[in-house]
Amino acid sequence: MAENQSKLNWKRQLHEIIYEADTPAGKLFDVILLIAIIVSIALVMLESVNPIGEQYKTELNIAEWIITILFTLEYILRIISISKPKKYIFSFYGLIDFLSTIPKYLSVIFTGTHSLVALRALRLLRVFRILKLGRFIGESEHLAKALKASRARISVFLFFVLIICIILGSVMYLIEGSENGFTSIPRSVYWAIVTLTTVGYGDIAPATPIGQFIASAIMILGYAIIAIPTGIISSEIAKEDKVNLNTQSCPHCATEGHVDGAIFCHHCGNKLNE
Amino acid sequence: MAENQSKLNWKRQLHEIIYEADTPAGKLFDVILLIAIIVSIALVMLESVNPIGEQYKTELNIAEWIITILFTLEYILRIISISKPKKYIFSFYGLIDFLSTIPKYLSVIFTGTHSLVALRALRLLRVFRILKLGRFIGESEHLAKALKASRARISVFLFFVLIICIILGSVMYLIEGSENGFTSIPRSVYWAIVTLTTVGYGDIAPATPIGQFIASAIMILGYAIIAIPTGIISSEIAKEDKVNLNTQSCPHCATEGHVDGAIFCHHCGNKLNE
Amino acid sequence: MAENQSKLNWKRQLHEIIYEADTPAGKLFDVILLIAIIVSIALVMLESVNPIGEQYKTELNIAEWIITILFTLEYILRIISISKPKKYIFSFYGLIDFLSTIPKYLSVIFTGTHSLVALRALRLLRVFRILKLGRFIGESEHLAKALKASRARISVFLFFVLIICIILGSVMYLIEGSENGFTSIPRSVYWAIVTLTTVGYGDIAPATPIGQFIASAIMILGYAIIAIPTGIISSEIAKEDKVNLNTQSCPHCATEGHVDGAIFCHHCGNKLNE
Amino acid sequence: MAENQSKLNWKRQLHEIIYEADTPAGKLFDVILLIAIIVSIALVMLESVNPIGEQYKTELNIAEWIITILFTLEYILRIISISKPKKYIFSFYGLIDFLSTIPKYLSVIFTGTHSLVALRALRLLRVFRILKLGRFIGESEHLAKALKASRARISVFLFFVLIICIILGSVMYLIEGSENGFTSIPRSVYWAIVTLTTVGYGDIAPATPIGQFIASAIMILGYAIIAIPTGIISSEIAKEDKVNLNTQSCPHCATEGHVDGAIFCHHCGNKLNE
Repeated sequence: MAENQSKLNWKRQLHEIIYEADTPAGKLFDVILLIAIIVSIALVMLESVNPIGEQYKTELNIAEWIITILFTLEYILRIISISKPKKYIFSFYGLIDFLSTIPKYLSVIFTGTHSLVALRALRLLRVFRILKLGRFIGESEHLAKALKASRARISVFLFFVLIICIILGSVMYLIEGSENGFTSIPRSVYWAIVTLTTVGYGDIAPATPIGQFIASAIMILGYAIIAIPTGIISSEIAKEDKVNLNTQSCPHCATEGHVDGAIFCHHCGNKLNE
Repeated sequence: MAENQSKLNWKRQLHEIIYEADTPAGKLFDVILLIAIIVSIALVMLESVNPIGEQYKTELNIAEWIITILFTLEYILRIISISKPKKYIFSFYGLIDFLSTIPKYLSVIFTGTHSLVALRALRLLRVFRILKLGRFIGESEHLAKALKASRARISVFLFFVLIICIILGSVMYLIEGSENGFTSIPRSVYWAIVTLTTVGYGDIAPATPIGQFIASAIMILGYAIIAIPTGIISSEIAKEDKVNLNTQSCPHCATEGHVDGAIFCHHCGNKLNE
Repeated sequence: MAENQSKLNWKRQLHEIIYEADTPAGKLFDVILLIAIIVSIALVMLESVNPIGEQYKTELNIAEWIITILFTLEYILRIISISKPKKYIFSFYGLIDFLSTIPKYLSVIFTGTHSLVALRALRLLRVFRILKLGRFIGESEHLAKALKASRARISVFLFFVLIICIILGSVMYLIEGSENGFTSIPRSVYWAIVTLTTVGYGDIAPATPIGQFIASAIMILGYAIIAIPTGIISSEIAKEDKVNLNTQSCPHCATEGHVDGAIFCHHCGNKLNE
Repeated sequence: MAENQSKLNWKRQLHEIIYEADTPAGKLFDVILLIAIIVSIALVMLESVNPIGEQYKTELNIAEWIITILFTLEYILRIISISKPKKYIFSFYGLIDFLSTIPKYLSVIFTGTHSLVALRALRLLRVFRILKLGRFIGESEHLAKALKASRARISVFLFFVLIICIILGSVMYLIEGSENGFTSIPRSVYWAIVTLTTVGYGDIAPATPIGQFIASAIMILGYAIIAIPTGIISSEIAKEDKVNLNTQSCPHCATEGHVDGAIFCHHCGNKLNE
């Protein structure tokens, strides 16, 4: 039983190192993991750059194996140290950990699994878990809250933008036609999105005067409606930042609008919560 | 007379299903209509994509006929179930319903009515009617209210932008000339709009040093003035979100708009809450 | 002397028609002038479009002469009807009136004065004078006030943007060099402005990895700093819109923060201004 | 000792002229320096423009020498007139002064030091020092304060944008591949940044339907999230502009932050103004 308890103790300590960032060991673990992730992303990038990827093929392969084994170890330790492994495995970060580790093993079994490289880029998402434990937490949560509050409005707006783009894309398909690059409605809708969002690649551009006139209208529209999401989020963030007076009413004089945390009524001087 | 009443009843029930979304049948009707619209838009899109449109010509044609007959039935039911059919037929949504159903019938009479495909894209506008009955209504109306309030200001702004673009376009036409793509003043105005709205296709781009200098000025101007519609809408949405003065009315002089926490009317000096 | 007075009267009436918009005649004059300006701009545009300009050369020439004579008459009437003609002639609108009327006359004396077409586009600026007398005045002035208040801040911002563009342009000139389109520092600065303002023509684009890395940094910088003018103008417009509580203090209870126009103190019920 | 004191006096006067802008001599010094900087930047630009740089090589060389000698003199005077020269030399502006003066001397020793031209562009940064002493100081500091307060939030946002771009870039690399210009992951990430920030050069553009679909999603995402930095800075500037709670401190318990118009302390219940 003593052995069992020491094992429990060992598990708890491991859990603290891996999942928390309060202890020096926990912080060190996070920093090492962060470096490993960044190095691994750099390797994935370098591999794709043609002259480098060819020349240092073996070196990059070895480095990738080291990173993969490190991440595998981490993944196993995470499963061991947690009390409910299933919950971790099927959680968002659990799946990302799995999907970003497995490609290298699969590449041994199946040759030519080039397309799994993308999964390795998912490792970057793990950065968010580490930083969640870091000092940025306050800032991110503040932003996240404002974004969550304006999610419904932004969705309505984006849905509206999409419908406009489909209708305008269809119109432009008829006006410009295949000879000017508007070969199909989906492609015209793609062009309308490129234009309305003011990206403007120029891979497709209107050539007829009427097309250019409508395109101008779309641009000015896009220029005007970009103000809408900005306005929504601005007012949401402003609301978060404001010092709100609560609606608490004084039991003696019924004065409302007290500062959060007020004990006495600012008007009659009696206690607020009796 | 009993027959007449049962007919009236039948009409009322149909009206409830088609025009309202409170009953289960009404909700089901809206969902089916929504799916039909989305499928129909997908068909219009697929038809325009060249290899697919050619290969599955008959299948797409049959599917389009099914959708068209469905929409025709719905159109007839809408006319039957409403008490004032004329009002519906000439309303905004009534015209859209008609214009988005008729093209298929016209294509039988007149061959080569390719240009009526655009009218079918108008079906997408019908989505708004359905959603108006849905849960997004609160959000959309809040936004719509803020946009309505800032409509006049935004119009003044866009009018101002247009005048700037015409003047700058004329200037660039003289500086760059036909050899650099500025073949006419309308085309130069198109270029000015492309530049000022920061779209920047690059199909027309200044080539002379003076032209590039003026283009730079236009870009920086566009970069600065994009702040104006944003500012207008931001402040409008922010206004919607907060209440400055309460709507309390003085029992003596009926003056409204008191500061929160006011005890006496600021106008007649009598007590506000007696 | 009676003759003199009737002349004065005639002058005063003319002044009212031309410079004011309160009387029906004054309004009519403004509407006619507005139409004349729009027609004249349309003519200038059509003249520049190649097939049209060549084909309808005589028609356009005649129409242009009619417009020019109309504007000349208006210019003379403006000088006659005002008490201090010199002040008008050398005012902003006076100069625009002159410069937008003279080109046609000059084209008779000097042949090939193609470059004076731009001056005719200045006619568009006259629209602002007419609209100043119109219904848009409230809206425009509200906007103009907010823009005036944020002018200093916006200038500092744009000056800062310009310096960043010159430095980044110089750096890119060294990195990319003439072979990738960065043929000179001014041209590289032009590219930096195109990039920072998110216009992105693509006529010049970085080709080296280091150049693309720096370009990415510039884009993200531009994406972040576009928030600054927006923030400045937003807060300025919001300030204009806010209901301000004045700093007036009650002579009896010293309560501050009264609504503008308050007669009695909202706290103790005594008169505010005794 | 009198000689020593006169020397000290001479030093103090020099310090006042060079480092301050209160005296007429100090202002004159700043204006001359400002002109010298602008002329010098113009020279660097002209030198890089090919036909001009070749034709007026000697003239530009002489002018550059004059400017360099002027700046050298100024640099020496700055070191002499300050009490702690080391602090100046290793300060930000001290290093910029050195780095923007030295290239011309180095070009005598090492031929072909073309790459040092960029260092000369750093002279532009010196403008900020002069203007700091000027009238723009109030405006710049106001802005700088708001920017500083929102620095953390903006950093979190930009970091988030970068991660999105890396992941989306990797995905697009797999979908589009080398044949459509997405030759490596870093290049695809560069493309993702170009797209998300709505710059849109068009040097790389998606060609496959799936690629265009994802690109559309990125654009709409970019169009929506540009609202975030704007919202952050807007609310920060708005906060700077207004005061919500007054800074009045309770004479009994020293609690700060009372509502305007409060009579009793909301914390201890004692009267605020006795």
